[in-house]
Amino acid sequence: MESLEQPVLVVREDRVRANIRRMVEKARANNLTLRPHVKTHQSPLVGEWMREEGIEAITVSSPRMGDRFSSAGWTDITVALPMQPGAADAYNAMAAAGTLQLITDSPEAVRSVDARLSEPVVCWIEADTGYHRTGLGVWDRERLIETACAIDDSAHFSLAGLLTHTGSSYACRDLRAMADLYEDTLNQLKALRTLLAERGFEDIQISIGDTPMCSQLDRLPGVDEIRPGNFVYYDLMMEDNGSCLERDIAVAVACPVIAKHPERNELIVHGGAVHLSKESLCYESGLLVFGKVADPEGDAWSASVPGAYVQDTSQEHGVIHADDTWIKGKALGDVVYILPVHACLTADMFDAFSVV
Amino acid sequence: MESLEQPVLVVREDRVRANIRRMVEKARANNLTLRPHVKTHQSPLVGEWMREEGIEAITVSSPRMGDRFSSAGWTDITVALPMQPGAADAYNAMAAAGTLQLITDSPEAVRSVDARLSEPVVCWIEADTGYHRTGLGVWDRERLIETACAIDDSAHFSLAGLLTHTGSSYACRDLRAMADLYEDTLNQLKALRTLLAERGFEDIQISIGDTPMCSQLDRLPGVDEIRPGNFVYYDLMMEDNGSCLERDIAVAVACPVIAKHPERNELIVHGGAVHLSKESLCYESGLLVFGKVADPEGDAWSASVPGAYVQDTSQEHGVIHADDTWIKGKALGDVVYILPVHACLTADMFDAFSVV
Repeated sequence: MESLEQPVLVVREDRVRANIRRMVEKARANNLTLRPHVKTHQSPLVGEWMREEGIEAITVSSPRMGDRFSSAGWTDITVALPMQPGAADAYNAMAAAGTLQLITDSPEAVRSVDARLSEPVVCWIEADTGYHRTGLGVWDRERLIETACAIDDSAHFSLAGLLTHTGSSYACRDLRAMADLYEDTLNQLKALRTLLAERGFEDIQISIGDTPMCSQLDRLPGVDEIRPGNFVYYDLMMEDNGSCLERDIAVAVACPVIAKHPERNELIVHGGAVHLSKESLCYESGLLVFGKVADPEGDAWSASVPGAYVQDTSQEHGVIHADDTWIKGKALGDVVYILPVHACLTADMFDAFSVV
Repeated sequence: MESLEQPVLVVREDRVRANIRRMVEKARANNLTLRPHVKTHQSPLVGEWMREEGIEAITVSSPRMGDRFSSAGWTDITVALPMQPGAADAYNAMAAAGTLQLITDSPEAVRSVDARLSEPVVCWIEADTGYHRTGLGVWDRERLIETACAIDDSAHFSLAGLLTHTGSSYACRDLRAMADLYEDTLNQLKALRTLLAERGFEDIQISIGDTPMCSQLDRLPGVDEIRPGNFVYYDLMMEDNGSCLERDIAVAVACPVIAKHPERNELIVHGGAVHLSKESLCYESGLLVFGKVADPEGDAWSASVPGAYVQDTSQEHGVIHADDTWIKGKALGDVVYILPVHACLTADMFDAFSVV
């Protein structure tokens, strides 16, 4: 890492394993299944580390990602993207190799996918408990029952339970708000479960998943499964919302310095939107950043440099604003590390990474 | 395209060739070299179309991209990212296979890269004419001469001229502002050229490059070379700033419908931040969008659906706001097309594309 031709994604194995272990212990203490979302790393190698820490089931965000992990030997996979008939071939391949779990919020999807399935598939009904992205409205009792009946009537699906993604948790600014959101989410899902029970649908499980809630709350009563993803790497968003500390962040982009402008407090690195992504974070001060900056330390990186932030990116350039003394200490070709705003999108930019 | 397992990048060859041809004709009419930037498409196939339209020299934004096009047979390549010593092996490989041109704004870079070169390399001095990303300050006469002398004293470099990226052109809202920016840029570069001539540096060429300026101005007097990139595909940013019409946009992402919520005017597609990028565009109305939406038409897409926009993305989901009648006409699995905000970043998300 002393000299780089181009930006390199660097993963700290010790931090990844510590992050995984903490979540595994929390799942055990709460007597629930941890089915982590692998969309953050998309890496069969990190998947192996998960497996070594005792994880047996995973969540993926696309049929293609599921196919990749199925090929890597995972035999219990939930595709947490609403099922659609165009992906039926991928579903059949995964279901033939293990247990495939799909999600849906509509009887039409159940019927159209069922008609194209050749294997048994487990099905979850996705409920919208307030994030309003996908999922059946919790007020829509009629559609809930219609969807459950479509699953029941299908040739290939069996109903496992109710699933939600509590994306609103990213915006919770304190533990009390998070606990309230958890309770509200759970109450909504329990009400749906009661409705299903009244129609004879028994043993309905509850699955929730998002890193802020699963990281910040110690107790997760009443749910059967959690599906956090980002916790494996963490990032500046998660540090900002209180889900991790900076020293938990397990991934950074090593970037060579390509220009120095201490006269305007700027250091330019090769490391832009195609490496970091265009995701930004607006701090409470109003400062908009695309990454924090760290120096090399040992075979990884130091604590972030105070006041140094990536404040602009173009396709290949990253513009770091920092103290001019720090900038003057850098030579062209020197390597600095960028801690990403959103690790999932940054990791997706790279075909490979370096493990330290 | 009637049924998709996952999002697909679709490129319209007729539009790409028309876009290339228009720029080739403009370059000929202005008697200057067109050295298009291939960072937009990064595709050797589109490179072949460029070659068939008469283009012989290209610009790339990273050593790795240069290496890729060098391997595809291109023998006149400018790497438009400040040179740095860590990339010397890549520079040597490209220079051994053809003419390599590098850019710099510092004598330190010239000396440290020169020490690692084994092949002759052409060098451009990058000037900052107002965009303030990289480039030597035009006020810094001393550094300009020092850099030119370092090139002259080097073992491998020969000075070609002065180069700038006029990124400010993206924000020009009318032709008069664009013409003024062009004149101002050119005057700054000419002043630097005069300074160099006074020190005995002759035959200094001038290279500018950015799609808005090269698209919008018919006459480009006084420059020797232009390096636009985005014009090959165009996108919503370029439509918005007046550099193209929607019917010139040559690239879109075909996405399957995964959920319908007409009750809140939303259609959800499989097509999110890892397909479109997180680049957004804020229209004058205040509307923030991640893409326009079009229906399938023939083997490509229709004019954009009035009032339909991607207004939010997560990793794999795209949230389209649109008229509920249009939404009700879609079935799960149906394909819609998303016109990208920033084609360079969207194209970078895909390893392959479909040509129609």
